Amino acid sequence: MALDRLKQVAGHAAGTMGPPHPLDPLSEAEIEAAVAIVRKEYANLHFNAVALWEPRKTDMFAWLADPKNAPRPHRVADVVAIGKGSKVFDGVVDLTEGKIVSWKITQGVQPLITMEDLQIVEGIVRRDPKVIEQCGIIGIPPEDMDKVYCDPWTIGYDERFGTSIRLQQALMYYRPHIDDCQYTYPLDFCPVFNADTHEVIHIDVPKVRRPVSKAPPNNYHAAAIEAEGGFRNDLKPINITQPEGVSFKMDGRVLSWQNWKVHIGFNYREGIVLNNITFNDKGTERPVFWRLSLAEMVVPYGNPEHPHQRKHAFDLGEYGGGYMTNSLSLGCDCKGAIHYMDAAFVNRAGAAETIKNAICIHEEDAGILFKHSDFRDNSCTVTRARKLIVSHIFTAANYEYCVYWIFHQDGTIQLEIKLTGILNTYAMNEGEDTHGWGTEVYPGVNAHNHQHLFCLRVDPNIDGPNNTVFQVDAARGPGEVGSAENKYGNAFYAAKKKLSTAGEGMCDYNGETSRTWEMANTNKINPYSKKPVTYKLVSREVPTLLPKEGGLVWKRAGFARHAVHVTKYSDDQIHPAGRHVPQTSGEPSQGLPMWIAQNPSASIDNTDVVLWHTFGITHFPSPEDFPVMPAEPMTLLLRPRNFFTKNPCLDVPPSYCSVPSGVKQGGALVDQLSRLAFDDEKKSCCK
Amino acid sequence: MALDRLKQVAGHAAGTMGPPHPLDPLSEAEIEAAVAIVRKEYANLHFNAVALWEPRKTDMFAWLADPKNAPRPHRVADVVAIGKGSKVFDGVVDLTEGKIVSWKITQGVQPLITMEDLQIVEGIVRRDPKVIEQCGIIGIPPEDMDKVYCDPWTIGYDERFGTSIRLQQALMYYRPHIDDCQYTYPLDFCPVFNADTHEVIHIDVPKVRRPVSKAPPNNYHAAAIEAEGGFRNDLKPINITQPEGVSFKMDGRVLSWQNWKVHIGFNYREGIVLNNITFNDKGTERPVFWRLSLAEMVVPYGNPEHPHQRKHAFDLGEYGGGYMTNSLSLGCDCKGAIHYMDAAFVNRAGAAETIKNAICIHEEDAGILFKHSDFRDNSCTVTRARKLIVSHIFTAANYEYCVYWIFHQDGTIQLEIKLTGILNTYAMNEGEDTHGWGTEVYPGVNAHNHQHLFCLRVDPNIDGPNNTVFQVDAARGPGEVGSAENKYGNAFYAAKKKLSTAGEGMCDYNGETSRTWEMANTNKINPYSKKPVTYKLVSREVPTLLPKEGGLVWKRAGFARHAVHVTKYSDDQIHPAGRHVPQTSGEPSQGLPMWIAQNPSASIDNTDVVLWHTFGITHFPSPEDFPVMPAEPMTLLLRPRNFFTKNPCLDVPPSYCSVPSGVKQGGALVDQLSRLAFDDEKKSCCK
Repeated sequence: MALDRLKQVAGHAAGTMGPPHPLDPLSEAEIEAAVAIVRKEYANLHFNAVALWEPRKTDMFAWLADPKNAPRPHRVADVVAIGKGSKVFDGVVDLTEGKIVSWKITQGVQPLITMEDLQIVEGIVRRDPKVIEQCGIIGIPPEDMDKVYCDPWTIGYDERFGTSIRLQQALMYYRPHIDDCQYTYPLDFCPVFNADTHEVIHIDVPKVRRPVSKAPPNNYHAAAIEAEGGFRNDLKPINITQPEGVSFKMDGRVLSWQNWKVHIGFNYREGIVLNNITFNDKGTERPVFWRLSLAEMVVPYGNPEHPHQRKHAFDLGEYGGGYMTNSLSLGCDCKGAIHYMDAAFVNRAGAAETIKNAICIHEEDAGILFKHSDFRDNSCTVTRARKLIVSHIFTAANYEYCVYWIFHQDGTIQLEIKLTGILNTYAMNEGEDTHGWGTEVYPGVNAHNHQHLFCLRVDPNIDGPNNTVFQVDAARGPGEVGSAENKYGNAFYAAKKKLSTAGEGMCDYNGETSRTWEMANTNKINPYSKKPVTYKLVSREVPTLLPKEGGLVWKRAGFARHAVHVTKYSDDQIHPAGRHVPQTSGEPSQGLPMWIAQNPSASIDNTDVVLWHTFGITHFPSPEDFPVMPAEPMTLLLRPRNFFTKNPCLDVPPSYCSVPSGVKQGGALVDQLSRLAFDDEKKSCCK
Repeated sequence: MALDRLKQVAGHAAGTMGPPHPLDPLSEAEIEAAVAIVRKEYANLHFNAVALWEPRKTDMFAWLADPKNAPRPHRVADVVAIGKGSKVFDGVVDLTEGKIVSWKITQGVQPLITMEDLQIVEGIVRRDPKVIEQCGIIGIPPEDMDKVYCDPWTIGYDERFGTSIRLQQALMYYRPHIDDCQYTYPLDFCPVFNADTHEVIHIDVPKVRRPVSKAPPNNYHAAAIEAEGGFRNDLKPINITQPEGVSFKMDGRVLSWQNWKVHIGFNYREGIVLNNITFNDKGTERPVFWRLSLAEMVVPYGNPEHPHQRKHAFDLGEYGGGYMTNSLSLGCDCKGAIHYMDAAFVNRAGAAETIKNAICIHEEDAGILFKHSDFRDNSCTVTRARKLIVSHIFTAANYEYCVYWIFHQDGTIQLEIKLTGILNTYAMNEGEDTHGWGTEVYPGVNAHNHQHLFCLRVDPNIDGPNNTVFQVDAARGPGEVGSAENKYGNAFYAAKKKLSTAGEGMCDYNGETSRTWEMANTNKINPYSKKPVTYKLVSREVPTLLPKEGGLVWKRAGFARHAVHVTKYSDDQIHPAGRHVPQTSGEPSQGLPMWIAQNPSASIDNTDVVLWHTFGITHFPSPEDFPVMPAEPMTLLLRPRNFFTKNPCLDVPPSYCSVPSGVKQGGALVDQLSRLAFDDEKKSCCK
């Protein structure tokens, strides 16, 4: 493939005719170029991943500091391929030079399961005689095998089968009609599928059998709602329009909005990756974060009966948040003026494929930004906020994860995740005891307890890469009530503990002390407060990992043992449960525990550090979550503290401003379209 | 006052010509009628409050069950008046019968400080010779006394002055120019004001003096921003319109929206009161909550130096969230189609006064309600959510509290509070050590650490008044890793503890176990899950009360000692820090601690109960909070669990719906106004 064409196509994809930004995801042409380079030397492979091998941070910093003279980081592809016999190849291909940099067989691991890998299983399972036999036992005749479905999961880890054969487990369901919600009809057995030979090698069958449910369907599609009386017709439209366009700009994949600037990357594992986030502070572009992403997650289920312990999906590391991303629709997924970005991936055969509208970028009104009235004279300033949202949605079999990276005008970055989709379900007999491990959400449907634990990877760059993390707890002051130093007992302060080494950097949450973590640049002091410039992690949905120490999930999902880990930066440490997650045994634990164990006394004080934060929810299902779950939100904030010398959004035009001397300003900015709700009200009441 | 006119005016105020709903706030006419009835017998009073004396619950339940035959609850006024010598009168006036029901002098208490009480102080302080002397000491000459301002707070409690004289403390500030933000120039001394005699009786002067700051002003008004380069001009309008009107209806003060119905009350203390909240479950109006309100709050400051211990405002109980309510503006405070409601109060002189647009009711788009795609064929349903918001904003001297009661289509009720406004500040000398009790947010400005602790009063009515509260913790299952019962260690469940007595009903928060509280009707069992119908309190911003046990704040703000208290319902228990809060010593602690101590073994199992929840934030100020604070949000949810037999909002029309058999429905519902952000993008990408 000619380098010229490569450059041209890549440039086009980035919306410019120049070369792609070094952090841009590989274009379709680049993906196919990488495949072609590999194929010249290696045959009979199917491709698992061809993605940007991100430039080393020092190279990127050098180039950003002096783009004219410093060498431009090469375009490099990170390649994962699979050969016959579940052989796994990890390779690095330099696209700029058109050559393979490294290529090796990696033993004892299995790369993630792609959407194509998933699609293969169902048809094979339906034709397998042992599966047909099991279906017969629970009441499904052979002629109904087209009504049998499976969600093929990675096997997680099963000590009976080990790591060398690439495996999937098939969670089985039934649909009386093709449009019925299959999660209403879970089947009680679980085939194990060999992804190399494409055969069912084992079936886990429970001791107590559970015939397929005869309950009526429990659907949420339009036909079902119409049959139950129809959709409600009392919702009047809420129109959101931006007649003058949006307030953000895109230069390739670099987004500018208000004072923010950020490069928007995307990969098959993490989905959205935000890079080189800066905030323009009165003319100075101050670095804030080098890289933000959801780096991993795990969803352990709480039923100890075999083989449910295998249900603990690492949705990012075992399937890929990028690979599972939805193609979004205007007005459905987001309203207003939307900018979409596509995502290109490799397929098994080595061709590039694109998910249209994978990333959504839009603004929303965000209520009041700030307000104050003087009680003496009602002089008042009120300023409205807006936010900019970079989002994607991925479907992990039954569940949907909606990921919203939100930029606020006050310097806050918010990560919001909404969980929707459908509960994972298992069969139960009438009158069967759930033992508290799940809830009967519909007759015959046992939805097991589970946790959604996400790992946010924060690479801080608070006025530069040398940062220090402090754990901060609200604490009572010394001195008993009645003492001279604390007579009335009201003294309290922020107790800060510096995390000096990677070993010290493993922290648990404490809701009682409103615990937060501060990422500070101790070399730069706020001139007013005399405190280091800081961004603070404020996160309140931080459950403990419930699977027990030493158990399967605890071993495999080491990142989830603590609310926070802090490590010294390494270019190679992106994936906190390991580069390849499926079929890891957890002995030893991949990713974070291994990196920290290698050098627990490594300094994380005033150096380039990464903060890993595990947060999420514990979900005890109930019938209102079924057959499709109303979105459950969770959120966290990264907030500037002692970073600015004043409120950084005072220059946002107010909706209304009056001062005691009687001057009124900004009244003209009041939105003229808002109206009173009812005709019999007077037409306007604006000040 | 003729009863006829009363009925007519009250009927008009309620938007109907019938009599007011028994829970409607008193109309202007009713307030003045109550004053007239009192005046016939008592002279020389000024009025502190004339508000609805809420009907007894049993009377209300009887009337609601059979409005045609059961007696209609009388319109009754709850009157607080103050006579010469700080004498306090509590009275009850039956407006229906036109007579005083009870009237008494209440000893040893002081009612809240009204806005009028606040307004009186500044002028008197400015003319006081001792204040002028103190101003001179710190650098303000007598001719500049018109530049001296004060925020008159209640004194809280000061043991030197006791309870019998009505007192205020004057937090002192300076404005070089009338339009300057005074919080940039706090003064170091604190006059104590006798509200009965209108004189300064004492001044608290610190040992170390702090001359008034000579720093330049730190303003956020339009002139200041213009002088610094002007407002940004890169924000394009986001228009929100509802051309066909709103989707809610008002019948007097009873709001209907989607399946919800709620009576919207308002009083001078709590502000918004939501009563008789029901959810229409497929034709059955099921009671959910009888009454929801923010019943109290306290804002303790953490500086132990005298007299800062007095800074711990009970903004609701000492000033009144209703009295301090802002008059809201279309397009400024909320956008779209808005319905406002006014609020009528008594003034000192006994006349009725009205705050226009005190309550805002509007709908907002709320993103995705639910979504699921089938990975096999991309068949997909996506449905957009909206929410209905009932809000008010009150200004407590320096701070603004924005209170949003949010109804969701899925049966969830959310309370969101945004804090904005200005930090309370105190003077500091250059180089002075804050000792960690505060932060220098601008030269010479010390913003002390503080907490905002709110008390949510929840009167549940989960399918009827007899309810039971359970504390729920996520817990690991029994059996060590490797054991037969928990081989892989993954067992976990919801550990529920019934709160049986008021003494047991005092609970602390536990973030580690994701602790929640469930309000259940154990008499009514979900037919699928076999669990009692429940609403769950999910609240994650639950700091510990930091002032120490036995200290001033701990004694006065008994409600804040625990995250949750549960009491047996009593008509008279509305105010968890007592009916009259200013100058309570906390010996004994008023409100919740006293009620519980009276009978700690009172059963709260399967009876009419009230749950009191204290939540909030601990605020360690930083310069970006100044000179006006970007809104800081906090939120909590009341969620149905095992209340419905399925997702209760499946009948909301989808934006898009397709099924595996190929049928597509609902596509026509896609909002046709959303557009791509940039002209060079293709015009539409809707499925």
